[in-house]
Amino acid sequence: MSAENTTIDVPERLRTRVRPDGQSKYHTGKADWSAWPVYDGADLGLRNYWYPVQWSSQVTNEPQQIVLCGEKIMVMRDAEGRARGLHDRCPHRGVALSEGIEEFPGTVSCPYHGWTFDLSNGELVAVITDGPDSPMCGKVAVKTYGVEERIGLVWIFIGDREPHSIDDQLPEELVDAPAMAVGGRIEERNGDYRLYAENGFDEGHAKYLHRTALWRTFKMMPAWNKVHIEQHGRWIYRIEDERHWDAEFPGLGTWTNRRWWKLKPKQQQGKFLGNTGGNEQPDPYIAAQNYPGFASLSAPGVLRIAYPQFIHYEFYVPIAGGRTRYVGVMVQFKSGLQRLSFFARYLFGIRWLFHGQFSGQDGWMVEATDAPPERLYRPDVSLLEWRRLIESGNPFDSTPAGKPGAAGS
Amino acid sequence: MSAENTTIDVPERLRTRVRPDGQSKYHTGKADWSAWPVYDGADLGLRNYWYPVQWSSQVTNEPQQIVLCGEKIMVMRDAEGRARGLHDRCPHRGVALSEGIEEFPGTVSCPYHGWTFDLSNGELVAVITDGPDSPMCGKVAVKTYGVEERIGLVWIFIGDREPHSIDDQLPEELVDAPAMAVGGRIEERNGDYRLYAENGFDEGHAKYLHRTALWRTFKMMPAWNKVHIEQHGRWIYRIEDERHWDAEFPGLGTWTNRRWWKLKPKQQQGKFLGNTGGNEQPDPYIAAQNYPGFASLSAPGVLRIAYPQFIHYEFYVPIAGGRTRYVGVMVQFKSGLQRLSFFARYLFGIRWLFHGQFSGQDGWMVEATDAPPERLYRPDVSLLEWRRLIESGNPFDSTPAGKPGAAGS
Amino acid sequence: MSAENTTIDVPERLRTRVRPDGQSKYHTGKADWSAWPVYDGADLGLRNYWYPVQWSSQVTNEPQQIVLCGEKIMVMRDAEGRARGLHDRCPHRGVALSEGIEEFPGTVSCPYHGWTFDLSNGELVAVITDGPDSPMCGKVAVKTYGVEERIGLVWIFIGDREPHSIDDQLPEELVDAPAMAVGGRIEERNGDYRLYAENGFDEGHAKYLHRTALWRTFKMMPAWNKVHIEQHGRWIYRIEDERHWDAEFPGLGTWTNRRWWKLKPKQQQGKFLGNTGGNEQPDPYIAAQNYPGFASLSAPGVLRIAYPQFIHYEFYVPIAGGRTRYVGVMVQFKSGLQRLSFFARYLFGIRWLFHGQFSGQDGWMVEATDAPPERLYRPDVSLLEWRRLIESGNPFDSTPAGKPGAAGS
Repeated sequence: MSAENTTIDVPERLRTRVRPDGQSKYHTGKADWSAWPVYDGADLGLRNYWYPVQWSSQVTNEPQQIVLCGEKIMVMRDAEGRARGLHDRCPHRGVALSEGIEEFPGTVSCPYHGWTFDLSNGELVAVITDGPDSPMCGKVAVKTYGVEERIGLVWIFIGDREPHSIDDQLPEELVDAPAMAVGGRIEERNGDYRLYAENGFDEGHAKYLHRTALWRTFKMMPAWNKVHIEQHGRWIYRIEDERHWDAEFPGLGTWTNRRWWKLKPKQQQGKFLGNTGGNEQPDPYIAAQNYPGFASLSAPGVLRIAYPQFIHYEFYVPIAGGRTRYVGVMVQFKSGLQRLSFFARYLFGIRWLFHGQFSGQDGWMVEATDAPPERLYRPDVSLLEWRRLIESGNPFDSTPAGKPGAAGS
Repeated sequence: MSAENTTIDVPERLRTRVRPDGQSKYHTGKADWSAWPVYDGADLGLRNYWYPVQWSSQVTNEPQQIVLCGEKIMVMRDAEGRARGLHDRCPHRGVALSEGIEEFPGTVSCPYHGWTFDLSNGELVAVITDGPDSPMCGKVAVKTYGVEERIGLVWIFIGDREPHSIDDQLPEELVDAPAMAVGGRIEERNGDYRLYAENGFDEGHAKYLHRTALWRTFKMMPAWNKVHIEQHGRWIYRIEDERHWDAEFPGLGTWTNRRWWKLKPKQQQGKFLGNTGGNEQPDPYIAAQNYPGFASLSAPGVLRIAYPQFIHYEFYVPIAGGRTRYVGVMVQFKSGLQRLSFFARYLFGIRWLFHGQFSGQDGWMVEATDAPPERLYRPDVSLLEWRRLIESGNPFDSTPAGKPGAAGS
Repeated sequence: MSAENTTIDVPERLRTRVRPDGQSKYHTGKADWSAWPVYDGADLGLRNYWYPVQWSSQVTNEPQQIVLCGEKIMVMRDAEGRARGLHDRCPHRGVALSEGIEEFPGTVSCPYHGWTFDLSNGELVAVITDGPDSPMCGKVAVKTYGVEERIGLVWIFIGDREPHSIDDQLPEELVDAPAMAVGGRIEERNGDYRLYAENGFDEGHAKYLHRTALWRTFKMMPAWNKVHIEQHGRWIYRIEDERHWDAEFPGLGTWTNRRWWKLKPKQQQGKFLGNTGGNEQPDPYIAAQNYPGFASLSAPGVLRIAYPQFIHYEFYVPIAGGRTRYVGVMVQFKSGLQRLSFFARYLFGIRWLFHGQFSGQDGWMVEATDAPPERLYRPDVSLLEWRRLIESGNPFDSTPAGKPGAAGS
């Protein structure tokens, strides 16, 4: 990042992380991520967090493999219907347990020699091909993972200490919601989870990249705006200060997304809810959250976009090797018929237009991103604050190493 | 391999190769192969052995490339019908000779500039594009390989010294058999040749992994057994001490392969022949071999399973980069009508069920094996003795370096 | 290259570059390219040259990416119709500009955030999503490339200094030709551009490798010949001293390309034009060039084959990672009806037979070449002189570093 970037509207503490390079304007960028060592080093993912990995309905008593933060995990349900996670590697010869079956209730057996592990604690409880007196039993175990289920998803804790409560980490409004209808999409995508998080919270690209999204066919997008970022608790919020529908560039011409068939959104509803073009009253439960801004982000990569009638979440779940599990979820806080209507709208529209093509444009850009090096501009304040948030530590970690820094709400 | 494994029933000499690690039972395995340096270092294959590489009927006067122990070899027949092998690289510019043709009898010509080599000794005998007075002739040669044909297969000697007689290495019963009918299958497969050999001789997996093989649809498999290994000459034999058809695991339940449609094999025929479920009299030539056990293994990776009516062989031939040429052969020592009947049985049954699906299950597991690290159990005595056998040296090598160690029959 | 190769008919200066190895004739070759350090080091291509990269008709106001000598270049036409080249990387986040569009005349915009660059000088002139007052404008630029158009092709200068005039580098006869008809083919191929150049100028392979080319179905090829190489200006010419239609190899037999359906070419026309089997009078413009030989080669990899009625050129354009852009062009110096007739012949014959299958045989061999190591023979004098030519420096570079050496015409 070059010295010119110190003109972006960010606090002094961020500016000191900028590495001046004194190069000419033709340099292709010397900005690396060494100013954010925690962030830069987390190639395999941020540890000591819960991650959603699969729909609850897709987890049965047939084992499956999930790769999370570089670790191979076998996930299946035990005899009581509880989802369980074990290191997906038989200690004998390294074969994946997820290739095996449930020979006895509450266990999984390696397909090769029948080494059989208790799902609740990972202990080797039988070796089928070595008989009941096998001397291995009780002497070998595989690592277990914390597994929970919330909002229709199976979550796994990846880390090096006892898991904190998942309810501490779940977006607050989802913990004791009066009613919920959930629709969503889980996909493995190319691209680093950090680039997905930066893209998701990025104000800059939305108006330009997504101007051609079918989801926005009848809705006008601004040309440009000015934003600032505020942290409240463990979330950072993007707050718009100015919005411009047209931009006149001297010597070049005017740029606008105005089209006769596109509707210009009305005045923002309370400014803190995204506008979807309709004129419905906001859902009272959502309105009651009083978000400082309609877009917010928290560790380890949870994007929340509040709309009048539902909230959209994106979880950017690290797999390994620059692959990311995209978990896109829309939640409506309704029950009964309204719930059914939401499912219908989701299945016939939102799923394809928003979680499909719109979000696919993001995937296209994240794959195309080749940074660092990078050269940041004014709207990248959102990205800088996100990196700072990660750098300030894991908010659920009470050990000294994980203690959050001075930054906070 | 952990200290707990010292309970397995193996001689003291093997136990000292076990690396105690003093880790908790949750360790994923620290056992590497450093206790077997010859074995561990032979990534590209064991040298100074003969390997079967192709059916005799598939080798003609059109050159073909065979990769063996990392070396590219051009194989073709000369004008007298003798199979020949040359290093598959023209010294001029590195083009593969196997892309060329036989321009003159007993030679092969590089397709690029017509450098022409004598198949019998690798000498450059003509350079078509440089005329009869080419100064290169007689000054350049490519390396030749020892090539022989036995039991319908072409064998190549890979090594660094004069080849020993192939008849010294061929399984003894194949050298002067009264009559032979041979059926088989050659396939390139993913997975290291050592893991294939370990899998082939492994008692442990057969009963569990192959319980679902079509080949075993009507034949009951034991639940578990106890075995020991004996070396006789250059072969190690797996000998069964106990056989159990059911296993009761406390707190879990009973495991058995009993099904109403499966036939339990009768008492073993002399104990040293595999039981195929029928009640035929053993073939007298096979019976006369008096094998100490029905499964045996010898260097460089030759598995022999003796059945009452035929012997099954598997040759695990190293290619390179973790690829193995699987050469599966069944031999019946009959002639005339019985020979025809064997071919019919082979083509319509054995080939698909045994050399196909059954052996494909092995390939699935060898590919899935991710060892070392490993944590061995009681039945792995077969694997330990095999590694020791290789470590004891090449039995056909009379030089000091290759001299077999103290271990022997 | 072994000591025996000193028998090849090359000047003393070349012989001293041969590395004697004193090995037996079984060595597979120790000859590396260390005797040609400039050549050996130019893995990504020779710099400070113009390269043809695309047909003029294929370059429009839609950006496209061209990879040349390892550099990604965005090529498109500006509002005045002039072809332009920019480094294909937005400095912001590394996205390729070739994925964007022309938002304003004479500019290209990055698809991600609308960073907009002037095609003429690479300057950042607008950032659509940051409004007209964006502080980045005027402070950032991307590198521009020299771009020219000649004989229907777009050329790019790749280097580290101001480009020399493309007309200095164009084959001389193409600069002020009275009239021209051009047909050709551009393809990306596997294989190093140096091996393509060596193959293209190589006398040795043509007669043997291409004896099966459809292009030569009715035309007899010699068995072997003797050649020498002469340098005139910046071109080296291959000149034939002897031609033999048959070769009798003692103990092997006779080799000839004589067939009853093949026509033996007549006496060469002035010896310095390639014979195509017809008996037409040479084109006066081509005849007037008075080439010392019908095949010539110049830096950075331009092959010229002069036929009586047209000249065939091959440009071997380095991409990266052992890939080469093959630009094959045939030029006839005619206008009017003759020009139309040439196009018809090109489209219905030459394109498929010559630029297709014939040249595809070369691609097959270049891919199969695995050199160094190599062991050269008499006809490889062409290859040695080509390497020496490159070693002698860039003829268009007036700086001391680039100054050509003593070698010359």
